[in-house]
Amino acid sequence: MKLYDLAGADADRRFSPYCWRVKMALAHKGLAVETIPWRFTEKDAIAFSGQGLVPVLIDGEREVHDSWAIAEYLEERHPDRPSLFGGASGKALSLFHASWANGFLQPAMMNFVVLDIWNHVDAKDKAYFRESREKRLGKTLEAAVARRDSEVAAFRASLLPLRLVLRSQAFLGGDKPLYADYAVFGSFQWCRCISDFQLLAADDPVYAWRGRMLDLFDGLAGKAKGYAV
Amino acid sequence: MKLYDLAGADADRRFSPYCWRVKMALAHKGLAVETIPWRFTEKDAIAFSGQGLVPVLIDGEREVHDSWAIAEYLEERHPDRPSLFGGASGKALSLFHASWANGFLQPAMMNFVVLDIWNHVDAKDKAYFRESREKRLGKTLEAAVARRDSEVAAFRASLLPLRLVLRSQAFLGGDKPLYADYAVFGSFQWCRCISDFQLLAADDPVYAWRGRMLDLFDGLAGKAKGYAV
Repeated sequence: MKLYDLAGADADRRFSPYCWRVKMALAHKGLAVETIPWRFTEKDAIAFSGQGLVPVLIDGEREVHDSWAIAEYLEERHPDRPSLFGGASGKALSLFHASWANGFLQPAMMNFVVLDIWNHVDAKDKAYFRESREKRLGKTLEAAVARRDSEVAAFRASLLPLRLVLRSQAFLGGDKPLYADYAVFGSFQWCRCISDFQLLAADDPVYAWRGRMLDLFDGLAGKAKGYAV
Repeated sequence: MKLYDLAGADADRRFSPYCWRVKMALAHKGLAVETIPWRFTEKDAIAFSGQGLVPVLIDGEREVHDSWAIAEYLEERHPDRPSLFGGASGKALSLFHASWANGFLQPAMMNFVVLDIWNHVDAKDKAYFRESREKRLGKTLEAAVARRDSEVAAFRASLLPLRLVLRSQAFLGGDKPLYADYAVFGSFQWCRCISDFQLLAADDPVYAWRGRMLDLFDGLAGKAKGYAV
C-alpha cells in the first residue's frame, strides 16, 4: 500500500492529523505502507482521487481518501486483524471522537500552532497556506497565535472530557487503543510535529496518554520528526 | 425496581440529567421502575447508599448509585435485553460521550438555566441550591445567566462535534440509540424540564435529534413536565 502523506519543507516532517490517524490505524492492523511525501499545492499528484486533500491510500487497484473512509475500508478489508472499532456500535460511537477532534480540538489548537505550521511548510506552499488559513481564521496567522501564552490555560481546561475518561481507563478504547484514540491523538501529534509550544502540562493525564500513544508500535509516532514537548 | 429521582417544588417536575440517563436506560432495557421524587436536601432518605446524590436505584436487595454505575449494572444484570453499549469496546467508548456531557455540556448549559433551576426547586432546597451553585460558579445565579441572550450563539456553535455526527447517522449509537445518546440527551432534557430558554435553534440537526429522543419509548421524555422549547 502507498499513502500520500503531508510533508513540510523537510520531507521527513509529516504533520497532518488526518494522515497520522491513518498511519496509526495501519499499524494497528499490522499492515505495512510506503508513504509518499506530499505538499499542499501538489494537487495534480492526487488528482486521480477526484479531490485535493490527503490522506490518499492506494491499495493495489483501489484508491481511498478521507481518513474516516480509509479506517472503514481497512476494517472491512481486514476483518481478521485487530479491530479498529470493536464492532458496529463501536464504529458508530467512534464517529463522535473523530468529530470532537475535527470540530473542537483542531480549531482550538490552530490558535497555538498555525504560525509554526507556516514556518515549516515547503516554500512553494507558503502563500497558499497563509492565504487559505487567514481567510478561514478571519485574521493574520500572527494575530491568531498572539495571545497563546495567556490562552493555553483555558485550552488545557477544555480537555476535561478527555481527562475524565483517562481517570478510569488507559485509552479511549478501554485498556487498549482503538481508532477513537488515533482520531484524537492525530491532533496532538499534528502539534508536536510542527511546534515547540508546550500545549500540555507534563502532569496532565492527557500528557501521559499521549505518551502511551507515542510509544505504540515500536514508537511509530514518538520517533517521528517533531519537538519533544 | 425503585429510583430516587430529583424533583422540583412540583413533584412531577423531574429534571436531573443523571436521572434522565437512567430512566432512558431502563426503558431501553424494557424494565419498569417506580420513581420516588427526591429533593436536594433529603440526604437522609438516601443515606443508606453511603452518599448524598441521585440517581439511586433499588433492585430488590441491591442498591446502585451513580448513573454510569447503574448503566453498567443494568447491562450486566440483563445481558439478554437490548445492549446499552454494543459490547465491551462500545462501553469503553461511551465513557467519552458521558464525560463530554459532564465536563463540557452541563457546565456550559449552567450559564443559561441555573437561575431557572433555582426558581423551580422546592422551597426547602432554595438556600442550599443557591449557596452551593454560587460557590461553584464563583458568582450569583443572576450574574451567571445575565448574558445568556448574547452567549447562546456561541453555545450553539460549540455543539459542532455533535452536529457532525448527526450529519451521518440518526443517533450517536448509529441507526438506533445507545447509552451514549442517553448520556448526552440527559443534559438537554435537564434544560427542557426546567427552563423556557430556547437553547437550540429549531433548524439545528441537534434539535431534530433531541426530537427523536423525546419520542422514544412512547414519548417517555417528551411527555415529561417541561417546556416546549
